[in-house]
Amino acid sequence: MTVTRRALLIGLGAAGGAGAMYAAMNVLGLAPGEQRSVFEAPRPSDFALRGKSAAKVVILGAGIAGLTCAYELGKAGYDCTILEAADRIGGRNLTLRGGDRLTETTGEKQAARFGEGVYFNAGPARIASWMVTLDYCRELGVPIEPFVNGNASAYIYTSGMKAPVRYRTARADIFGTLSELLAKATSQGALNDTVQESDKELLLDFLRQFGDLGEKTTYEGSERRGFATYPGVEAGTPLPPPPPLSELLGYHLGPALTFDLSSEQAMPMFQPVGGMDSIVTALADMIGRDRIQLSSPVSKVTNLDDGVEITHAGGTIKAGYCVTTLPPHLMAKIPGNLDTRVLAALRAAQPFAAGKLGLEYGRRWWEQEDRIYGGITETDLDIARIWYPSEGFHRPRGLVVGYYNFAADADIYTALKHPARLEKALTQGERVHGPKYRKDLLSSISMAWSNRPHIEGAWANMPPSSLLHEPAGRVYFAGDWLTHLVAWQAGAFESARHVVTSLHARVLKEETE
Amino acid sequence: MTVTRRALLIGLGAAGGAGAMYAAMNVLGLAPGEQRSVFEAPRPSDFALRGKSAAKVVILGAGIAGLTCAYELGKAGYDCTILEAADRIGGRNLTLRGGDRLTETTGEKQAARFGEGVYFNAGPARIASWMVTLDYCRELGVPIEPFVNGNASAYIYTSGMKAPVRYRTARADIFGTLSELLAKATSQGALNDTVQESDKELLLDFLRQFGDLGEKTTYEGSERRGFATYPGVEAGTPLPPPPPLSELLGYHLGPALTFDLSSEQAMPMFQPVGGMDSIVTALADMIGRDRIQLSSPVSKVTNLDDGVEITHAGGTIKAGYCVTTLPPHLMAKIPGNLDTRVLAALRAAQPFAAGKLGLEYGRRWWEQEDRIYGGITETDLDIARIWYPSEGFHRPRGLVVGYYNFAADADIYTALKHPARLEKALTQGERVHGPKYRKDLLSSISMAWSNRPHIEGAWANMPPSSLLHEPAGRVYFAGDWLTHLVAWQAGAFESARHVVTSLHARVLKEETE
Repeated sequence: MTVTRRALLIGLGAAGGAGAMYAAMNVLGLAPGEQRSVFEAPRPSDFALRGKSAAKVVILGAGIAGLTCAYELGKAGYDCTILEAADRIGGRNLTLRGGDRLTETTGEKQAARFGEGVYFNAGPARIASWMVTLDYCRELGVPIEPFVNGNASAYIYTSGMKAPVRYRTARADIFGTLSELLAKATSQGALNDTVQESDKELLLDFLRQFGDLGEKTTYEGSERRGFATYPGVEAGTPLPPPPPLSELLGYHLGPALTFDLSSEQAMPMFQPVGGMDSIVTALADMIGRDRIQLSSPVSKVTNLDDGVEITHAGGTIKAGYCVTTLPPHLMAKIPGNLDTRVLAALRAAQPFAAGKLGLEYGRRWWEQEDRIYGGITETDLDIARIWYPSEGFHRPRGLVVGYYNFAADADIYTALKHPARLEKALTQGERVHGPKYRKDLLSSISMAWSNRPHIEGAWANMPPSSLLHEPAGRVYFAGDWLTHLVAWQAGAFESARHVVTSLHARVLKEETE
Repeated sequence: MTVTRRALLIGLGAAGGAGAMYAAMNVLGLAPGEQRSVFEAPRPSDFALRGKSAAKVVILGAGIAGLTCAYELGKAGYDCTILEAADRIGGRNLTLRGGDRLTETTGEKQAARFGEGVYFNAGPARIASWMVTLDYCRELGVPIEPFVNGNASAYIYTSGMKAPVRYRTARADIFGTLSELLAKATSQGALNDTVQESDKELLLDFLRQFGDLGEKTTYEGSERRGFATYPGVEAGTPLPPPPPLSELLGYHLGPALTFDLSSEQAMPMFQPVGGMDSIVTALADMIGRDRIQLSSPVSKVTNLDDGVEITHAGGTIKAGYCVTTLPPHLMAKIPGNLDTRVLAALRAAQPFAAGKLGLEYGRRWWEQEDRIYGGITETDLDIARIWYPSEGFHRPRGLVVGYYNFAADADIYTALKHPARLEKALTQGERVHGPKYRKDLLSSISMAWSNRPHIEGAWANMPPSSLLHEPAGRVYFAGDWLTHLVAWQAGAFESARHVVTSLHARVLKEETE
């Protein structure tokens, strides 16, 4: 059906242009909808109607992928056991609150000293509206609220600038400047071979609106830039005039101005109320806490003819199937009898570094003084970006993310102890916010995902096609790293659903044979 | 000081370019900050230290301007009485809930039959982060949450289209197409007199990112457009290819793609939790309900030598001062002894029409099927736009705004009775959402602001300079219509603060003399 539908659309596209295609898609129920492949959770009736029984499944890892496998298989009565190496569930879905403690693989220890109601999503923190994560929030009754990703009042700061510039100002200047340039080229006939004569006026009209150009189709600034003093009883006081093209280009605004255009990051985004781990808690409650064994690192995984045998800190379990959600580079080190090609595929995963710093302040200076309510300041410093909280507006305390950086930038901070990370990040943050960035700071905690025990990486990049999409004997692999949504919880959910579907089909088939 | 500071900045601008100016502004504490003029609320000590007493003030109208005057004057002990013509407070800040009733000036009656927790902000519904309205939320303890204004998943629908297009798709196609055109003109040397040779590569680099262009700096589509089927375990299925330039321009995307760039509408925006009238309730609670007389339309306002005399439905009051917040075109009709030039200035106000339709559904189909969580679909139909709720995500019920239209479009709907408004709006909405737009509809209510008793207009446009900025004798004028923030509650707050400051200074002066 998918192929037929796609073939039809391609045929229509050739004949009638995109408009006809959009229209046809509507009729076919494809857009609006953009539904992912339909997932049908296993049901007790799948077995009851055939007089079969549900199998026993051991799941390695109590992150989103593992919990989702247990949750979905549990709907049909599978006997699931989750073995979690750490002493808490959630994996990278980690919300830190006052009293929480961290120990890094290096032995470095930290404690969160946040006040009541303050939390820090040290791992995933935002959900796009098309992601299946929201469906789980709905199904599990986890309330959600908007996560402010792009913010017109947040700053962009790059080394080319003498001072940070607000997003609204940079955006207005770019839109205005590009529109003026294109209007000029069009009017001068430079695009005559591309822009039909009959379209020229339409294009110029569009550019006047898009760039907020003046009567002469030149950009002279715009109220979109914001104001030195905003309008009230009196008119607003304009900002200094827009910078000349050379200066504007020297700001290297590209990454900052486009990050929230991607399908994964476009506004609006969402977060669970009270912390991302609300999802973890809800899943665990549905699964039953007694099915989750904490502090149970696995030391051996053996495929048998009629099942799998898992050895862990608390003993040995035999089950019909195993689903491992361990990070691939760590799974590769677990002894057992996995095929050498499977081990090689696991070792092909490239763990990726990311770091995050939580800064708890006793005063929301970013709201009161900068009028920044949520959102992100993008920089080209090694802190990469500063996040402002999307919750608890106007409360006395609030948590700012002092860095969320990747790769080499993350490695720099990972190599430091927490006090040095903090000091370095504050020095960088001051370049954006000035001395107040150190004032009213109450406490802080940093996450270096490369140093997180049993995880050792923020996420892992895999070659696109991997034999790990198929089970190795009775061992299945699940995790965001096996999807096209690496680093997103949605990837873990989707992968888990894929494995559940595949495993369930096999169980029904094997039990029948 | 303001003048000096501005002069300094202008001087710097001339000498060092915008970068130097941005830097200087930071040092001077101007940006970041952009603070409005400082407002100091009257304090009891203003009188106590001088052995004076606070005056009696009669305020006409219990909308945001009137309530704010009473609230701020009340801080110093002024004896304020608010006369409100309607039987409820709030004016245009009107949140409708189940059980509320509306009667239009035509006699047409409606009742809201919304279920528990469903509300409809029939007047103001969103707050920009720089607006003083947020400061009042903070001071009054009114919790706020993000209002989703722009939404990448919402639609744009114009008569040129065969089917609605998602914002993310239209935006990606525009950014891509404009970037490709400008890259082409630049590469061909068409802009050599504007773009320095040394900037060309920077501009092309920027355009590659801005438009998500391919290697040949052409636009071939982008993941920013969204997908026919979003990525998961498998890669996403692309949408049909972008339309050619002619078709794209024919969509007339300008208004839809730029509305949330304005300083008043840029994301993020905010709303009080539970309904906009939380602000009204909080103000009234602070003022004291006993100071507000409902159902008390004013029939005469007379300036006396030593005060003012106000005749209303319940009698006559004498006070030291009067602040009228009545819509100017209605105030112009109230008998009394206001100067003919003042009356002419009041009559110069042009009331403006706007309408809003609330549609309560029993199923959030826009979230479940369209993956639209809040935000606005812009159309060029007479409904103008459709709003999706920014609160109560995933709950069973939800309220969609079926139209929020202005001027001639609003007049069309105002002229109809509610059932005909509803039918017409549903027919238009179906063009965007198809037959499901009629399904699951539980109840509806429509607001035609031109027909709202004692208000008779959504807002009023005034000539920029008006003698109403000054008191007429002992009668002061307040309202958003007297500011540069017409149609925004922030205008009402700012105007009230201005009048309070002015009146208080006069009281202190007169009492001294």
